[in-house]
Formats: sequence, C-alpha cells, structure tokens
Amino acid sequence: MIPADDRGFTLGDGLFETLLAVDGEPRLWDAHLSRLQRGCAALALPSPDADACRAAAAQALEAAGLAVGRAALRISWTAGSGGRGLDRPAAPAPRLVATAAPAPRPGVPVRLHTASIRRNDGSPASRLKTLAYLDNVLARREATAAGAEEAVMLNTRGEVACAAAGNLFWLRDDVLSTPELSCGALDGVVRARILERAAGDGWRVLETRAGPEALQGADAVFVTNSLGGVRPASAVDGHAFASHTATVRLQALVRDAV
Amino acid sequence: MIPADDRGFTLGDGLFETLLAVDGEPRLWDAHLSRLQRGCAALALPSPDADACRAAAAQALEAAGLAVGRAALRISWTAGSGGRGLDRPAAPAPRLVATAAPAPRPGVPVRLHTASIRRNDGSPASRLKTLAYLDNVLARREATAAGAEEAVMLNTRGEVACAAAGNLFWLRDDVLSTPELSCGALDGVVRARILERAAGDGWRVLETRAGPEALQGADAVFVTNSLGGVRPASAVDGHAFASHTATVRLQALVRDAV
Repeated sequence: MIPADDRGFTLGDGLFETLLAVDGEPRLWDAHLSRLQRGCAALALPSPDADACRAAAAQALEAAGLAVGRAALRISWTAGSGGRGLDRPAAPAPRLVATAAPAPRPGVPVRLHTASIRRNDGSPASRLKTLAYLDNVLARREATAAGAEEAVMLNTRGEVACAAAGNLFWLRDDVLSTPELSCGALDGVVRARILERAAGDGWRVLETRAGPEALQGADAVFVTNSLGGVRPASAVDGHAFASHTATVRLQALVRDAV
Repeated sequence: MIPADDRGFTLGDGLFETLLAVDGEPRLWDAHLSRLQRGCAALALPSPDADACRAAAAQALEAAGLAVGRAALRISWTAGSGGRGLDRPAAPAPRLVATAAPAPRPGVPVRLHTASIRRNDGSPASRLKTLAYLDNVLARREATAAGAEEAVMLNTRGEVACAAAGNLFWLRDDVLSTPELSCGALDGVVRARILERAAGDGWRVLETRAGPEALQGADAVFVTNSLGGVRPASAVDGHAFASHTATVRLQALVRDAV
C-alpha cells in the first residue's frame, strides 16, 4: 500500500524499472539500476540505495511466489510524500516499492500501429521510465483498438521515437537503425545492449532521426524491451513484413539478457 | 492508502480535480465535476458517481478538520488496479480518493519564468488534469530555481500554453487574450468562467495562438486557477509589469468562485 499523498500517486513524480527475473535472478540488474540512477539525476531526486533495491526485489519475488520461472519485477522510486502542490518538500524522502508478477514470454511477431498521440521530445521525461506514463497507456489503447499489439509513437516533429513499451529498430540494406534518444526515445536497457554489441558482431548500426516512412520502407522492424527481448514486427499500419533471417542473429545479441 | 498496483500510481493513469472549499463548501463544484467527466470520456474511463464524489469530499474535509476556513480539496479518480503492463483490464474498476489540506490565499503578485520543458499539445492529456503531471512538476522546479514562483509552459511549437498550475491571460490594448485549448492549455475551470463572463462585462476577449513575445509585449499578465483566482504577474522572465487597474475588475468576475 502507498500513502495517498505520495507524489508518485498524485503527480507521477517518480521513476520505475521493469526487469525480467528468471528463477529469482534479475537480468541486466546493473544496467537497470544505472538507468534508475541517471533518471534520478535528471529529475533531481535522491538516488536509491543499490542494496535496498536488491533486497526489495528479492522480497517481492518471494512474496509473489516467483522464485522459480519468469517474473516481471517492477521497482518504483517516488518523490515521496509531502510538499505543497507541484512543489516538492525541501528534502524529499523518496519511497521504494517493488512488486513482481508472472511474465510469460510475449507473443511474436508483433503488429504495430502508429498512434496519433505524440511523444513529448520537449521533456527529459520522454527518455525516462517515469510514473507519468499516461501517454504510453493512451498510445497502446489506440494500437489495440486498431487490432495491433503495440504502438509506434512519433515525436512532436513527426519522427519515429519508440514503441509504447519498448524501443524500435529497423533494418534496411543491412543497416540497423534506431531513433536517437533526442527524438524522445526511451533510453532502453535492451536498446543500449544491442547498440553496444551489434558493431562487434558485424552489424552496421545507426542512431538516427527518421519519419514513419523509414519503417514502411524497411526490410524488417523490431521491438525491443526487457521482458520481450527482440521481437520482429509482422506489420506496421497494415504494411506486412515477411520474416527476416536477421531476426535470429539480432536476438542472439541479447540472449543472455532476456 | 492506495494499493501499489493502482494504475494511478504505476502509470499516472487517472485524473484529479483541485477545488477550493470555503467553510466546508466546495466552490464551482458543478464545473469541476463536469470537467472530471469530460476527462473520463477523453481517457475512456468510466465516470465517477457525482454523489459518491460529494460524499468523499465532505468526508475528506471533516477528516482534515477543515470544515471551517479555506481548504484545498483534491479528488483523484484512477483507472484502478489490474491489467497487464500498459493495458487496462477489460472492465476497469476505478478508484476514488479525496483529500483535503489547508489552503492559505496564495501570494500576489507572481513572478513568472518560462520553462525549457515543453507542453505536449500532441496529447489530449495536455488539456486535462491527469495523474501524469511530472512535466508540470519539472517546469515549476525550473521556475523556482530561477527565483520565480510559477512557470510559463510553451507548447512544442513554441506557443504559450499555460502555467504549471493554472492558465495564462494577458491584456494588450484592452483585448484580453488566452491560449486556445488546442495549444495544449489546461481546460481550466476559472479560465472557462472568465471566458463565459468577460464579454458580458464589456471585455474584448480572444482565444488565440501566440508566441512568448505576446507576454513580453502585454500591458498585464495574469495567472488563474481554482485556489488563487486571478493573480497578476509582476514579471515574466525578468521583464517587469506595473500593477494594472484592470486587475481588480478581472478578479471581480470570479469573486464568487474563489
């Protein structure tokens, strides 16, 4: 339970991480914790203690009976209680909350639908997993209403930013591209891992700015996140993609992580 | 207390209203309830029951010992618990939370600072009081860090949208202007009341789109909201405004409401 005056609840003033845990072991723990700490710096929040996070995570997995199997571990870190309206208290006392739920392997491939709701690249929050995720909820709703499973979010300039719950990559003429973070793309942990490893595996990789035509004209499109790893798109706005031999090679890059 | 799986907490999936209550009586109750209902329609949430809201408000005022004096009443309406990640459950069971706090009359005049964080006019949430209010928190932080009390938020095209916690009006050559809602302006209850009454009181009123130069070039600038009514700005980004005779007349338009 959370106090009703928690600023995470009242204002979305906080951050979260979603991690995959397998048999009680969180994957990419250091990368997730590091992103949470960078997010705290961006929001001017004190950082959580790493040991406290780890202990809370273990407790959440145990409480949910998920010490075995695949679990979605969620760590929330809020600005805590108090303050006056929008203003935080002089010394915020953040609140740590960890929960766990079963995480069956998500279905593949994924049908994508471009949402009308734009991603606010004019806010640092667009690069962070914040408790103010309503635009993502609404974008996902648009996608499911259109018969798709996930949304493509464009930024305020109409450039591709990311998915509602993940990052986007596309392959064309053997170049693997993903939007720059400044497009309003979430700074995804799996995205970072792919960028870190792809060149060493012989990929030509590009962080770029591109309109939605880049997806339509691609040879393959992928959604990446911590729970699903690398999932190929079968369609973007009804434009179908055949399965691509590069998929397995891309998935292999992060096999240890997801 | 709120369950940790409430979507208001985990994702900012919900709405709120902040009302002024004086001696136990909420001001502009119908207007606030109507806005909450319109917000529910925009977010595809079931609407709250009006009687339940009223009862929760009365209970919150009593629990806080605020049956006498000025109180800030907050009604939150969340998408409730459950669902899977971003996806709401098939039949959301929203949660109603009401709280009350003392509401001393806010200080005047107000120094304004234009925040670097943009308001996402590309999302319907920009017109609503949603639980995903982090951009407003960050904009206010920028303003207070710059020695001001409130932020001017520009939209993604660089047009004036609204304040972090209120709407903006400006007066020039006897024309009273405020940004159109499509600029990403909050659909403010006091804003609506002013627009409804100003023409009958002899004002020339304009809902418009304008860049920040409109504020710098104005004869007077005002911040409006439910707790503060109409507050004149003493400065915008260091550009000072003398007190203006129109202020009292504008305040009189909503005297019954604040």
